[in-house]
Amino acid sequence: MGRIPFLTPVVVPKIPPFPEPHVKWMFEAVEAWDQSCPADVGIVGVPFDRGVVIPRVGARLGPKSVRETLYNSTTYSYELDVDVSSLKVVDCGDVDVDIMNYGETHRRVEQVLKQILGSCMIPLIIGGDHSLTYPCVKALHRSEGENAKIGVIDFDAHLDCRVDWKECHGLWVREIQEMEGNPVEGRNIAQIGIRGFGYSTFYRDYVKKMGMRVFTAREVKDRGVHAVIEDSVKVATDGTDMVYISVDIDVLDQAFAPGTGVPSPGGLDSWELLSSIFY
Amino acid sequence: MGRIPFLTPVVVPKIPPFPEPHVKWMFEAVEAWDQSCPADVGIVGVPFDRGVVIPRVGARLGPKSVRETLYNSTTYSYELDVDVSSLKVVDCGDVDVDIMNYGETHRRVEQVLKQILGSCMIPLIIGGDHSLTYPCVKALHRSEGENAKIGVIDFDAHLDCRVDWKECHGLWVREIQEMEGNPVEGRNIAQIGIRGFGYSTFYRDYVKKMGMRVFTAREVKDRGVHAVIEDSVKVATDGTDMVYISVDIDVLDQAFAPGTGVPSPGGLDSWELLSSIFY
Amino acid sequence: MGRIPFLTPVVVPKIPPFPEPHVKWMFEAVEAWDQSCPADVGIVGVPFDRGVVIPRVGARLGPKSVRETLYNSTTYSYELDVDVSSLKVVDCGDVDVDIMNYGETHRRVEQVLKQILGSCMIPLIIGGDHSLTYPCVKALHRSEGENAKIGVIDFDAHLDCRVDWKECHGLWVREIQEMEGNPVEGRNIAQIGIRGFGYSTFYRDYVKKMGMRVFTAREVKDRGVHAVIEDSVKVATDGTDMVYISVDIDVLDQAFAPGTGVPSPGGLDSWELLSSIFY
Amino acid sequence: MGRIPFLTPVVVPKIPPFPEPHVKWMFEAVEAWDQSCPADVGIVGVPFDRGVVIPRVGARLGPKSVRETLYNSTTYSYELDVDVSSLKVVDCGDVDVDIMNYGETHRRVEQVLKQILGSCMIPLIIGGDHSLTYPCVKALHRSEGENAKIGVIDFDAHLDCRVDWKECHGLWVREIQEMEGNPVEGRNIAQIGIRGFGYSTFYRDYVKKMGMRVFTAREVKDRGVHAVIEDSVKVATDGTDMVYISVDIDVLDQAFAPGTGVPSPGGLDSWELLSSIFY
Amino acid sequence: MGRIPFLTPVVVPKIPPFPEPHVKWMFEAVEAWDQSCPADVGIVGVPFDRGVVIPRVGARLGPKSVRETLYNSTTYSYELDVDVSSLKVVDCGDVDVDIMNYGETHRRVEQVLKQILGSCMIPLIIGGDHSLTYPCVKALHRSEGENAKIGVIDFDAHLDCRVDWKECHGLWVREIQEMEGNPVEGRNIAQIGIRGFGYSTFYRDYVKKMGMRVFTAREVKDRGVHAVIEDSVKVATDGTDMVYISVDIDVLDQAFAPGTGVPSPGGLDSWELLSSIFY
Amino acid sequence: MGRIPFLTPVVVPKIPPFPEPHVKWMFEAVEAWDQSCPADVGIVGVPFDRGVVIPRVGARLGPKSVRETLYNSTTYSYELDVDVSSLKVVDCGDVDVDIMNYGETHRRVEQVLKQILGSCMIPLIIGGDHSLTYPCVKALHRSEGENAKIGVIDFDAHLDCRVDWKECHGLWVREIQEMEGNPVEGRNIAQIGIRGFGYSTFYRDYVKKMGMRVFTAREVKDRGVHAVIEDSVKVATDGTDMVYISVDIDVLDQAFAPGTGVPSPGGLDSWELLSSIFY
Repeated sequence: MGRIPFLTPVVVPKIPPFPEPHVKWMFEAVEAWDQSCPADVGIVGVPFDRGVVIPRVGARLGPKSVRETLYNSTTYSYELDVDVSSLKVVDCGDVDVDIMNYGETHRRVEQVLKQILGSCMIPLIIGGDHSLTYPCVKALHRSEGENAKIGVIDFDAHLDCRVDWKECHGLWVREIQEMEGNPVEGRNIAQIGIRGFGYSTFYRDYVKKMGMRVFTAREVKDRGVHAVIEDSVKVATDGTDMVYISVDIDVLDQAFAPGTGVPSPGGLDSWELLSSIFY
Repeated sequence: MGRIPFLTPVVVPKIPPFPEPHVKWMFEAVEAWDQSCPADVGIVGVPFDRGVVIPRVGARLGPKSVRETLYNSTTYSYELDVDVSSLKVVDCGDVDVDIMNYGETHRRVEQVLKQILGSCMIPLIIGGDHSLTYPCVKALHRSEGENAKIGVIDFDAHLDCRVDWKECHGLWVREIQEMEGNPVEGRNIAQIGIRGFGYSTFYRDYVKKMGMRVFTAREVKDRGVHAVIEDSVKVATDGTDMVYISVDIDVLDQAFAPGTGVPSPGGLDSWELLSSIFY
Repeated sequence: MGRIPFLTPVVVPKIPPFPEPHVKWMFEAVEAWDQSCPADVGIVGVPFDRGVVIPRVGARLGPKSVRETLYNSTTYSYELDVDVSSLKVVDCGDVDVDIMNYGETHRRVEQVLKQILGSCMIPLIIGGDHSLTYPCVKALHRSEGENAKIGVIDFDAHLDCRVDWKECHGLWVREIQEMEGNPVEGRNIAQIGIRGFGYSTFYRDYVKKMGMRVFTAREVKDRGVHAVIEDSVKVATDGTDMVYISVDIDVLDQAFAPGTGVPSPGGLDSWELLSSIFY
Repeated sequence: MGRIPFLTPVVVPKIPPFPEPHVKWMFEAVEAWDQSCPADVGIVGVPFDRGVVIPRVGARLGPKSVRETLYNSTTYSYELDVDVSSLKVVDCGDVDVDIMNYGETHRRVEQVLKQILGSCMIPLIIGGDHSLTYPCVKALHRSEGENAKIGVIDFDAHLDCRVDWKECHGLWVREIQEMEGNPVEGRNIAQIGIRGFGYSTFYRDYVKKMGMRVFTAREVKDRGVHAVIEDSVKVATDGTDMVYISVDIDVLDQAFAPGTGVPSPGGLDSWELLSSIFY
Repeated sequence: MGRIPFLTPVVVPKIPPFPEPHVKWMFEAVEAWDQSCPADVGIVGVPFDRGVVIPRVGARLGPKSVRETLYNSTTYSYELDVDVSSLKVVDCGDVDVDIMNYGETHRRVEQVLKQILGSCMIPLIIGGDHSLTYPCVKALHRSEGENAKIGVIDFDAHLDCRVDWKECHGLWVREIQEMEGNPVEGRNIAQIGIRGFGYSTFYRDYVKKMGMRVFTAREVKDRGVHAVIEDSVKVATDGTDMVYISVDIDVLDQAFAPGTGVPSPGGLDSWELLSSIFY
Repeated sequence: MGRIPFLTPVVVPKIPPFPEPHVKWMFEAVEAWDQSCPADVGIVGVPFDRGVVIPRVGARLGPKSVRETLYNSTTYSYELDVDVSSLKVVDCGDVDVDIMNYGETHRRVEQVLKQILGSCMIPLIIGGDHSLTYPCVKALHRSEGENAKIGVIDFDAHLDCRVDWKECHGLWVREIQEMEGNPVEGRNIAQIGIRGFGYSTFYRDYVKKMGMRVFTAREVKDRGVHAVIEDSVKVATDGTDMVYISVDIDVLDQAFAPGTGVPSPGGLDSWELLSSIFY
């Protein structure tokens, strides 16, 4: 296989801040991917936020910031009794975005992801704005074959089904349901953490018509996060071949993620989100 | 009826940031009040904080900030399945405060509120410092008649019953119990979220003597917010003709409202407060 | 007894911001200690953070900041119905640290604490970085006699058992288990709030070997803080003569203590910590 | 004349924070424009920053912020002995931008400006990102006739002549020199405050070829701002019919304008800029 | 002499952060005043800002903050070749303010200052809001006798001659010229750094009528700070018996004093102010 | 030559944020050094700040931050008409520091620098705290031979000649004058920007005895930066074989470098510093 176009390696520094032989730092465990070796998980960055239409931009700094935090950790969590180094994790690098061209960037993301999926890794994609989920799901569909069905679990404050916008971060949930071949059906989409005054009865009716399952923040609080996750997994796996999980950091209450683009109160706390991810 | 003195319209801009026909923005739904038409709810701002005696001032910016946030929302919440546009909401404007004169400003607030209440709207008052609740409750009393009884539900970290101060934000709960005709009795006052080291046994005895019902933050956490709200509603409605609800933003833990004048830990989270308001 | 060396009085101002006869301010209740009079509780500051090896330093400002907050309170909490002025609380002042000399500062802390403990007060020690717990526990051991057994309850995000470091804030839990005479046994150590990716299976095995009881943040959330505290107290009092309680502020979720050196998500909220302390 | 399309009035509040008869506040002096009455100066806002390609966005908040600051002033400066109320200043409102459509927004700006210029006012345009200067200059050209010549004085850290970009804030100086009919010649463009490592010899040669006059920040510092302004005025008025003045706030050193998109050191201080404007 | 009422000692800590025998720290050199011993300079704090009518309060924290900074210095400046320890400097403490009572606080300040002046010290007064200059000048007048004449040099962005306000920080320059016996004449007042749009021709005429000498920020920049100071000293000493120097920190450009209540651009830089003070 | 020990490459990313063929970005021009090829300038990072004894740490982040800023620039400055790409600049990487061991880190810095100097590059060293200048000057001396004489130009607010401290950022100017063989004489040391109250007559006498030339910030302001630089160059080159230039960012006024460890007013502005460096 030739080199994957539009994918630039991000070199992971190998030296810890001070020698500590009794732990393994994440940056020691994660290798840069040579685009051929097999691996379990592949980190992919997409430093793009041209889909953000509000003044609080900066999601393009996501891959840089998440990597800095990630590599500042060790591979083992006492809390979870999990050692990530039992998996082979590689860093595939960043997709070469065209910061001024939404469509072209989406095309590149889809193309890169499709080739990474062809390597049988599970991609761990770090955005970037939420519009990027659309080409990711498209790549997943293309790589798995015509008839594959995809379930989606989306942690989010917002429904992301806008019909009045285009080329922005607020409409990918609608877009994935309009894909050719219908690989994502509304009845396999679970949205967790929806809240706030941001929609209309039009969108309520849209959700109902499509059969999506929306767990509001209120429902998470009232029933507990474990019950909601259990239900979500059922929704997303019911008749599907695979599940795509998406986390919009604004699912967190604004006290826990004050830097997000559209912060809002009444959301999940950090434990509720972590607890869902490590379910 | 002539113009209400000391009340200045605040014009609500009508144009959304970008056209979005499938939602209704709050600023499209809320009209400036012409001081005559009937409405369900009337927003009134009081940009006054001379009652604040600590160095963290700024409550006078409340009406401006709350309006900016409010009008940045749509009228519909998926979480609550509520569309505010089923009510007629008007913006009455701001009371003309005299920033250097506590007594004069209180007089104007009382006078304006009394006339707004005469229009049969439910006023939604945006302060300003907490001292303003006193003239608001007075106006409510005056407008409802000599023998009307008023219950109060107060979300607050503090008892606000100081006896050593005057003209400040820490004594309105005492003041409303000392009103002529005794329209507000201690046994109809519920305070939710009280916490911290800020009082004395003198005030504990005062609370007991007056028969007030104090739900500490600890009680909210241990019993759950729903149970506390249910009890509070019973307290405030027991033999009363109407209920006044007051929210001091410092009822929230300082992580959720870091900009308040007297931030303190161990308070409610934003969901607990929203959940109480949308009870 | 002569003056205690290396201990400098911190004078507590006596005048409240404005006269308020119906409360007692903490700074009116807490007297500077004359190094002879008996008291129930003695506040001791240790403005030292040379044990911090990361770039977010500042724990040396702890005694100053905590005193400012503390003295800004009254002696009575309505929430707890507790009046601190029923105890005699004195302020012993700050230990004279040598900001550039870790070992010398530790020696001074141990020496000062031993003499304060000789006065039969319960010391309330305000750090300073977490390495300081080691000389404090040593002083406790020395003052109580050769055979005294000590239990420890530690609120912390981290295990603090590092073996690759020396002279730093991450190893005191190991150090106290290696003290001569073995006054602190692993089976009497309860750690509450541990979380995140920061260790290795080596440390898991160390915890198991030593018999320490670790309550992860996840366990606190799942079982409730009251149950965890009850268990912790059992662990720390099982066969011991006294209990040392240590609070690392990073036990709180980063939303509640954003200024700490190593902030991390998924931690306790402020009510859970306060509720544990006021158990 | 009918209403100008794509122009929305911004209502100017009339009530000062507290009564002060001996001064005239700017918001008392500036009236909302009724799109017909003659005036000397017309304020026009353009809340658009889609031309910004870096992560520090927010220029769209410019009209709101500048109006708040401006209207918080009185009409008289003792320093300059100037009373703005000797002019008739009106607020024309904001251009209706399409936040997601660069080209459409530029067309609207040009169209609105042309009509305002037809009213014989001097427009005072508050952006918005710097790309907006292009449609403004175009409108000026159109309104003044085919053969009118325009000089430009630009306060800026950057040359804004990019050839590799399109639809962005870094190329309007090139665009205005490529306008049909050649109304702006390089020899009539003065740029003041240029500095930093951001270009190439290609751009140096471009500047030379076009005959532009660049006053670097260093030249301002070495020769003094008065001399540079004098020269700039000569450049911009030499054979031209009118002068367009543009201020990019990043002409200021980053200590004086820390919030700008591309802050850089070695720039002008606030006095040097004010002194140039009030030349 | 008995104790001075309304004056509370502020104890100066004696221990440096770490031992450094070759310098003398300011907190080692400045002693708490025992209200009897003679000294050259006496520091007096007035933690009062109730005269501030804008939302950016906090001047009451001035004495605390200035002392912390001051005592963090040594007594010697290489730049000036001056050793402050050649003077006897004492810390007189803080005036007991009544934070809610402007008039009462002013009376106390005047009374305390008069007694301190009776001890023949030069007081170094740390505010607090600028209204406090009025009682200070009154005290100076009272202590020096009926016929003493006082010159004033005021570093300030604002004229502070408001006639529409009372009990606030914007009118002391008018008040001192209206004192009985006329000890301060306009022709002996020099104001340095005045700028911005904040007044009216009414105030220009007032300045002219009173004969005050106003050096605008622009004049400082154009003529240089040395020339302006020289002129100011002439103005303030022409026929007077003593000079009062007042520094409002907003004389600095907002880049140099961003925390002040009314920040404004075009002001002095920190060197220009320091250079004036150490003239 | 074998690999240089204790030196870790820092990989420079090669892809610009978006394609721009008409400029050359610095990260395209600077190559990672292979430890053998000849070059004109070699960038060396030393991420170490254990020599900082105050609570504002973070200088260890210097190499990371400076590289991010640097590589965000192009190679050409219009202001200076200089294209850096006419030099061969390589990035040698970071010295492997031992964050907890001052002496060991200094030894490594000296050793690495000596070998880099052996490659005939001019090293551009990015700290790290100011103590690191000592091993750098030592390496310079060792690499140039026994009798080489070194001049030093130091931009700094502080004299850095402490005699009471060891292992800290405040004494390297003394240390370099006490080196064996006396390669740096006081009469060849020029310090620019010294100011503030931080020393004593002891240090004044030390400066005089050693024959150092101190240009205070005041002298820079009064005489102009060009004259001072001219004098400094004379001092540092008088009879020396080479000159070491050191920049402590606190030479800037605190408005221009607010994040430095010991910010102070009255310093240079950013233009004065840049203008000196590009002299």
